[in-house]
Amino acid sequence: MTGLHMASEMREQPSVLAALSARRSEIAERVRAVRPDPLHGTVLVARGSSDHAAIFGRYLLEPATGRPVALAAPSLQTLYGAPVDYSGFLVVAVSQSGRTPEIATMVERLAAAGARTLAVTNEPDSPLAAAADAAVELRAGTEQAVPATKTFTAQALAFAILAEALGPVSWSEDDWARLPAALEAVLADPEPAERVAAAIGDAPGLITVARGYCYPMALEAALKLKETAELLAEGYSAADLRHGPTAVVSAGFPVLAMSTSGPAASDIADLVVTLRERGAAVHEIADRPDAELPIPAGLAEPLAAILAVARAQQVALALARQRGLDPDAPRGLSKVTLTT
Amino acid sequence: MTGLHMASEMREQPSVLAALSARRSEIAERVRAVRPDPLHGTVLVARGSSDHAAIFGRYLLEPATGRPVALAAPSLQTLYGAPVDYSGFLVVAVSQSGRTPEIATMVERLAAAGARTLAVTNEPDSPLAAAADAAVELRAGTEQAVPATKTFTAQALAFAILAEALGPVSWSEDDWARLPAALEAVLADPEPAERVAAAIGDAPGLITVARGYCYPMALEAALKLKETAELLAEGYSAADLRHGPTAVVSAGFPVLAMSTSGPAASDIADLVVTLRERGAAVHEIADRPDAELPIPAGLAEPLAAILAVARAQQVALALARQRGLDPDAPRGLSKVTLTT
Repeated sequence: MTGLHMASEMREQPSVLAALSARRSEIAERVRAVRPDPLHGTVLVARGSSDHAAIFGRYLLEPATGRPVALAAPSLQTLYGAPVDYSGFLVVAVSQSGRTPEIATMVERLAAAGARTLAVTNEPDSPLAAAADAAVELRAGTEQAVPATKTFTAQALAFAILAEALGPVSWSEDDWARLPAALEAVLADPEPAERVAAAIGDAPGLITVARGYCYPMALEAALKLKETAELLAEGYSAADLRHGPTAVVSAGFPVLAMSTSGPAASDIADLVVTLRERGAAVHEIADRPDAELPIPAGLAEPLAAILAVARAQQVALALARQRGLDPDAPRGLSKVTLTT
Repeated sequence: MTGLHMASEMREQPSVLAALSARRSEIAERVRAVRPDPLHGTVLVARGSSDHAAIFGRYLLEPATGRPVALAAPSLQTLYGAPVDYSGFLVVAVSQSGRTPEIATMVERLAAAGARTLAVTNEPDSPLAAAADAAVELRAGTEQAVPATKTFTAQALAFAILAEALGPVSWSEDDWARLPAALEAVLADPEPAERVAAAIGDAPGLITVARGYCYPMALEAALKLKETAELLAEGYSAADLRHGPTAVVSAGFPVLAMSTSGPAASDIADLVVTLRERGAAVHEIADRPDAELPIPAGLAEPLAAILAVARAQQVALALARQRGLDPDAPRGLSKVTLTT
């Protein structure tokens, strides 16, 4: 059977996240020491899966800090050398390996421009960790499958810890305590994902859609499906999907819709009805027992999004296997991407 | 023949952009009057095509203002009501119609949170224009085709005017003078796009790729192809493509690569070689006479990106017609998208 690394790394997620959350007061202290005062805003630097963790972080950090959060456009520094003033800004750079040259370069440049900098990485001895004022180590253990799973959810959880360190959040001690078991329950139940993978079959394309906290998880789900199953999957916010891309949805077109209880749920429910009226094959990840891909209910919305992405990982793994591909080693990819 | 509105609106672009650039000192004055002092950063609010213009604006405004630029996550306000402090920030909201409720709501909320606000719109009497401290009117005339063409390039040019108003830029009076005729030359020569559309044929998916100033144009090209030709096209930065999505590129897979002379050109050239080695059918929009989809050379890179997107509009129009679709009225879309 292919994808043994990916499968075993997915199963490690509850313990990786439990260990990371146990370190959160120590991490929070380090984060607060780096925070500029006053804080004008936060800028996040990442690529690939890490970029999706950063987008998730954006949804957590803007409410927590009360100040704008941006995703960096690395080429402005690495290609164009734009002269900028980042004083008053916290820069958080995210890279599993810490060895993507452009990410470390960005930290150096933005620090020189006045930013305080924080690295979120699985490799404390990496160039990225060395370049930043402080590092948050994920301690997720080696990840051997090319598609990131445990390091992605650990990065997402690291942003929850950062948010808690920097201001008010919408989750409680109880949510931290319940997350690992809820995630375990999802991962112990792969059959729904296998059924959905069979239904997707040999479709050439798919759209993933969500809104709010689940939106970055829809982006990550689409990337996992591309990497592992060679399926042209694209992730959208429900609002952006209505602004044009919905034109590609014809009869039988597969859609993976992700939502959890909260203000975004009714928007997704409306969209699912519209897409089904047009004949789309909509598969839902939701915290309702009747969902085709159910996740446990009751967690605060941001943490529940982590359960949703674990369901999507299962679909990607199952679809790759059904397609006879090896999700551990996708065509044309290597674990460390040396973009500059 | 279908797509008569889209075709005629594309042809209006040189005169629309010439008229807009003729108003640039008057517009610049209005922009400077709204700029907070000191300016901590800029936040851009948009959806769909307008969002791609905003991403283009991000590449222009960060170097010009020297301060970070962010794309807003509207749901943080419209769904979650996050309490935020936007004092010291300039908010620029972009909407062709000015009637997408969430965009006007964002301007109201962020103004209440301390931002100074600017609307970029084709409708000076719209709710969006009324909500903002000042409005930049595009005066592009009515756009009847659902896919935005002339209003998109006018929005992009409006960001060039904003950048000039707010700081140093990399283009000159000469570039402004040459842009309309260069755009005219592209639009008067549809055959290369028709040949590329024929080569794409009935492919179910396509990837557009660029980096730097052309990157938002690759996103817009992908959206145009989705809207008009029902082709599942996804836009990528060259760096992000290498971080995973390249796995979907198999033999014969169509790729539209966009570049202009400048620091990003060699990165795209390298990627094109890699993709061709894997058997991809790469079609290049570039400011070289030997490119399959050539655009005139010599314009400053940011303005040359506008020529590149006009070429992509031609490909979308030609492909829609070859597929027997009506690009003026894509399935499931209307001109004003009422997302909240």
